[in-house]
Amino acid sequence: MTLSILGSVAFDTLYTPEGNREKIPGGSAFYSSIAASYFTNPILISKVGGDYPSSYFKILNDRNINTENIQIDKDKKTFHWTGSYLKNINVAETLDTEVGVLAEFVPTLNTAAKSANICFCANNDPVSQRQALEQSNAKIKALDTMNLWINIMKDELEKTLSLVDILFINDTEIKMFTNEYTLLGAVKKIQKQFPNISYIALKKGEYGSTLYGKKEDEVFTSGAFPLELVRDPTGAGDSFAGGLLGYLENKTITWQTLKEALLFGTATSSFTVEDFGPDALLNTSKEKIEKRYLTLKSHLSI
Amino acid sequence: MTLSILGSVAFDTLYTPEGNREKIPGGSAFYSSIAASYFTNPILISKVGGDYPSSYFKILNDRNINTENIQIDKDKKTFHWTGSYLKNINVAETLDTEVGVLAEFVPTLNTAAKSANICFCANNDPVSQRQALEQSNAKIKALDTMNLWINIMKDELEKTLSLVDILFINDTEIKMFTNEYTLLGAVKKIQKQFPNISYIALKKGEYGSTLYGKKEDEVFTSGAFPLELVRDPTGAGDSFAGGLLGYLENKTITWQTLKEALLFGTATSSFTVEDFGPDALLNTSKEKIEKRYLTLKSHLSI
Repeated sequence: MTLSILGSVAFDTLYTPEGNREKIPGGSAFYSSIAASYFTNPILISKVGGDYPSSYFKILNDRNINTENIQIDKDKKTFHWTGSYLKNINVAETLDTEVGVLAEFVPTLNTAAKSANICFCANNDPVSQRQALEQSNAKIKALDTMNLWINIMKDELEKTLSLVDILFINDTEIKMFTNEYTLLGAVKKIQKQFPNISYIALKKGEYGSTLYGKKEDEVFTSGAFPLELVRDPTGAGDSFAGGLLGYLENKTITWQTLKEALLFGTATSSFTVEDFGPDALLNTSKEKIEKRYLTLKSHLSI
Repeated sequence: MTLSILGSVAFDTLYTPEGNREKIPGGSAFYSSIAASYFTNPILISKVGGDYPSSYFKILNDRNINTENIQIDKDKKTFHWTGSYLKNINVAETLDTEVGVLAEFVPTLNTAAKSANICFCANNDPVSQRQALEQSNAKIKALDTMNLWINIMKDELEKTLSLVDILFINDTEIKMFTNEYTLLGAVKKIQKQFPNISYIALKKGEYGSTLYGKKEDEVFTSGAFPLELVRDPTGAGDSFAGGLLGYLENKTITWQTLKEALLFGTATSSFTVEDFGPDALLNTSKEKIEKRYLTLKSHLSI
């Protein structure tokens, strides 16, 4: 009964209007796991190089995140993403990607990782995502992806999508994937192509998110948590998914618990963007997340 | 006890992925008035040229929209906007603007227009908007604007903004106006600069809208009505404001009625985008709008 999370554990170098950071800890599974750790003890599945500092491992272990499924290749380098938000704080521009160890990452899930209740493939190449999903005995399988894989590995991504129950995807990506120009048109096309996907959690950045179920009336929208200052949006989508799935992990999945989970994911990720890297996400608390959850809920009341 | 609406009554020539239309009826006050006509009998304040066909006047009069305050200059041409949605269905690209009669438009409100309960300045130049607001005895004054006026007449717009209670503005425009990059940062700046503005209705196109009051907890977000097909988004924002204010016209304005009004505005404008020009907006009914209102409300329930 836990949540296993596959994805990148990485270095991030960032340029933002609020300042720059070099080789700070990042990665899709890193952010998702920290977000989920407010709700459960996630099992992280990834690979890093010999250059990944023990102090970054400590961040994860201090939060009871199981790191036994993180492979270490001492002779290679950790994935390193360099991005800029200088043109638009809401859109990451990739300046450089050193794939490092993730180029030849074949996940191997131990017994605990395999038997997790939920298996979440945070953004990573669709082949390694599928390898993890195929090993997993999870009741619920979820996946996040990004424009890169839609562009260069769409066939592989489609194979992997046929294995999941919950899809996390952003507004730009779902339009790109489906070649549709309305969000609902894109959602319907995904639902038709992948009848296995029961729920789509559509991420819309500063505009919040919408959850779509299979029934016509299963649509639920929340705004983003209103913030005056956004320092660094890196990891917002990963934290959203991690918080959402972390909240769900010990619950029966119903339309009601999914809606609650979407607000918890939104609340969790709102901390991520308030400071560079994982700093603000690490410094929040379950109580603070719950307070923002209630605020988000009040913004929907009518 | 009615709603007076100042703004353009115009010709629109449109290029969209779903087809093109030449010199169809359009204009900010045209769309707002039709939307509002499902809730009240609005008084339209505008100016057209001798080329404006009586058949387009008939559209308005058939809906009990009072056209006595539409000036006609027989020797000049009606405002004509040519726009394209070919690059992005969600963003209008202006190809040509023939200002025509609106270049020298000085609104003169008759007694009925002056004594309307709500005065709404739909998008138009901020000087004519101010001239209308100064003549109006309305209890509630509302205004919509656009990037053009922020770019070329910001001083005039600021003077006009100091006269209004409710501001309609879109996400791009509010960031441009305030030079802020978060929506809440921009909202706070407007609220500080214009303490007279009690409510901001932030339009976010396909992402819906958010209403901000002055109190910290007065935030209310709705998604757009989910549609698979969008043929022509022209007039969506105008219909949103017209529907919202039309619903409010005979009500006491409270946070609760404003939230309801935002959903009614959203429901009304969702018809506008389903067909070219005002066709779908004209062919809907109060009952259909109410049905979409209830659907939107259900999408918020948790």
